[in-house]
Amino acid sequence: MISLHLIGIGTGNPDHLTAQAVAAMNGADLILLPRKGSAKSDLIDLRRHICAAVLTAPVRMVEFDLPVRDATGPYLAAVQDWHEAIADTWRAQIALHLPQGGTLALLVWGDPSLYDSTLRIAERLKRDGLPIDVHVVPGITSIQALTAAHAIPLNPLAGPVTITTGRLLRAQGWPQGADTVVVMLDAGCAFEVVEPQGTTIWWGAYLGMAHQALEHGPLAEAAPRIAARRAELRAAYGWVMDVYLMRREKVRDAQ
Amino acid sequence: MISLHLIGIGTGNPDHLTAQAVAAMNGADLILLPRKGSAKSDLIDLRRHICAAVLTAPVRMVEFDLPVRDATGPYLAAVQDWHEAIADTWRAQIALHLPQGGTLALLVWGDPSLYDSTLRIAERLKRDGLPIDVHVVPGITSIQALTAAHAIPLNPLAGPVTITTGRLLRAQGWPQGADTVVVMLDAGCAFEVVEPQGTTIWWGAYLGMAHQALEHGPLAEAAPRIAARRAELRAAYGWVMDVYLMRREKVRDAQ
Ligand SMILES: C[S@@+](CC[C@H](N)C(=O)[O-])C[C@H]1O[C@@H](n2cnc3c(N)ncnc32)[C@H](O)[C@@H]1O
Ligand SMILES: C[S@@+](CC[C@H](N)C(=O)[O-])C[C@H]1O[C@@H](n2cnc3c(N)ncnc32)[C@H](O)[C@@H]1O
Repeated sequence: MISLHLIGIGTGNPDHLTAQAVAAMNGADLILLPRKGSAKSDLIDLRRHICAAVLTAPVRMVEFDLPVRDATGPYLAAVQDWHEAIADTWRAQIALHLPQGGTLALLVWGDPSLYDSTLRIAERLKRDGLPIDVHVVPGITSIQALTAAHAIPLNPLAGPVTITTGRLLRAQGWPQGADTVVVMLDAGCAFEVVEPQGTTIWWGAYLGMAHQALEHGPLAEAAPRIAARRAELRAAYGWVMDVYLMRREKVRDAQ
Repeated sequence: MISLHLIGIGTGNPDHLTAQAVAAMNGADLILLPRKGSAKSDLIDLRRHICAAVLTAPVRMVEFDLPVRDATGPYLAAVQDWHEAIADTWRAQIALHLPQGGTLALLVWGDPSLYDSTLRIAERLKRDGLPIDVHVVPGITSIQALTAAHAIPLNPLAGPVTITTGRLLRAQGWPQGADTVVVMLDAGCAFEVVEPQGTTIWWGAYLGMAHQALEHGPLAEAAPRIAARRAELRAAYGWVMDVYLMRREKVRDAQ
């Protein structure tokens, strides 16, 4: 039996770790650390750093290369294939390092529930007959890191929030019925497709990390500023991760 | 000058506190603890318990009575009046206990960005001329406690999420264009207005607390089960806080 702990570690600030995350890391027989290629090597360094900081006794750690998603072809099919390839890699690592079963920990960026594949991959392994028991330790998401850094509420007073992706925003425009929209997984400035009139944006990159960058303002004025800053940061660091919240004022009746 | 720290403490499980939250509590000159009336007295006990558990040296703590929201009349107007009354209370507590300024901490349930009034109340005080500098410490939300307890993803693969309230769900029905809907602040089983066909629900009450309750299943079958369980719990404990996620399968094209 494998007891799999998907541990949310927040988005870069080691102080965002919860006591539960620290305990789960210390309770593991094995921590698997995925390597995601050289561009984002800062991220595995950060995971190593977190382990070094919070482990009170040695825990076995194994690094492995994560398969790379095929960037050509239809998106969802490529994601499914990619999940299958990751599942195979996990299976191989488990067979190699925990042949008798035990407690396996994976450190998940942010919170494991939010635009993360580990829960879906664990489901695949289960479906394929691996005896696996999944435990989730929540972590601070990039959305919370964004709203905290700007000291803004997520929802408008008594109002709803839509969380979406850059891909969907580009394909479908402003979500129907929404007045607050959070955009994640944006490969590049999808906010440029939004009608700026009456819209305000709060943007953040590398949230919680040393080079955290923040911008905000009316979309018309802020959009080119953010696009320029993003391009600069990407050039400087080789990669960029950003998330943003856009709000449109709407007269809501008091029902 | 008042340095105000709004510290997210999670939704009941003291192990959900982050290292940053613990540091912010220990760094305060004053911690204000609101009393919300007898029905929810467990909640102030929990805050006292958290303080006792994490403070490494004595910090001044003051309890005060939170004004009560007028339950009659139009909802949004009542909320605005209520925020004004809370702002007055904060102002009075600050004048009394931090007349020379200092670092003030408030422990916020879950995360301060999510359906919480403290950021709006701080804005009011600022607008009225109180020299106040707001810092937010993110905390694990009830949504994350829900998805972690059920070990489910929040978003469908590459899809969006709508977060809304029981009031809005009741008034407007299933949000346009949504396939995953999270409902908070539900005074009672608003999921009953949803067409159950093709809809699955994951529900949780008292998440992270000793009497945590979980239910899930196809909405048609789960709705009466949840309504009955909720009524029982409410009768047993005098109050109930619940949150749920509903998902509809939708064929999404691979764009
Ligand atoms: C694969 S998703 C993982 C999200 C993660 N599970 C969470 O809870 O935030 C990656 C996306 O999250 C956002 N993100 C994650 N970390 C971030 C950070 N430190 N700063 C800004 N955005 C971040 C970006 O939108 C990025 O494209
Ligand atoms: C005023 S809002 C505060 C939300 C909080 N800031 C958060 O981050 O979750 C209160 C609502 O949050 C949800 N909630 C908070 N704590 C909860 C818990 N322990 N279990 C279930 N739902 C909870 C319920 O929907 C409740 O009506």
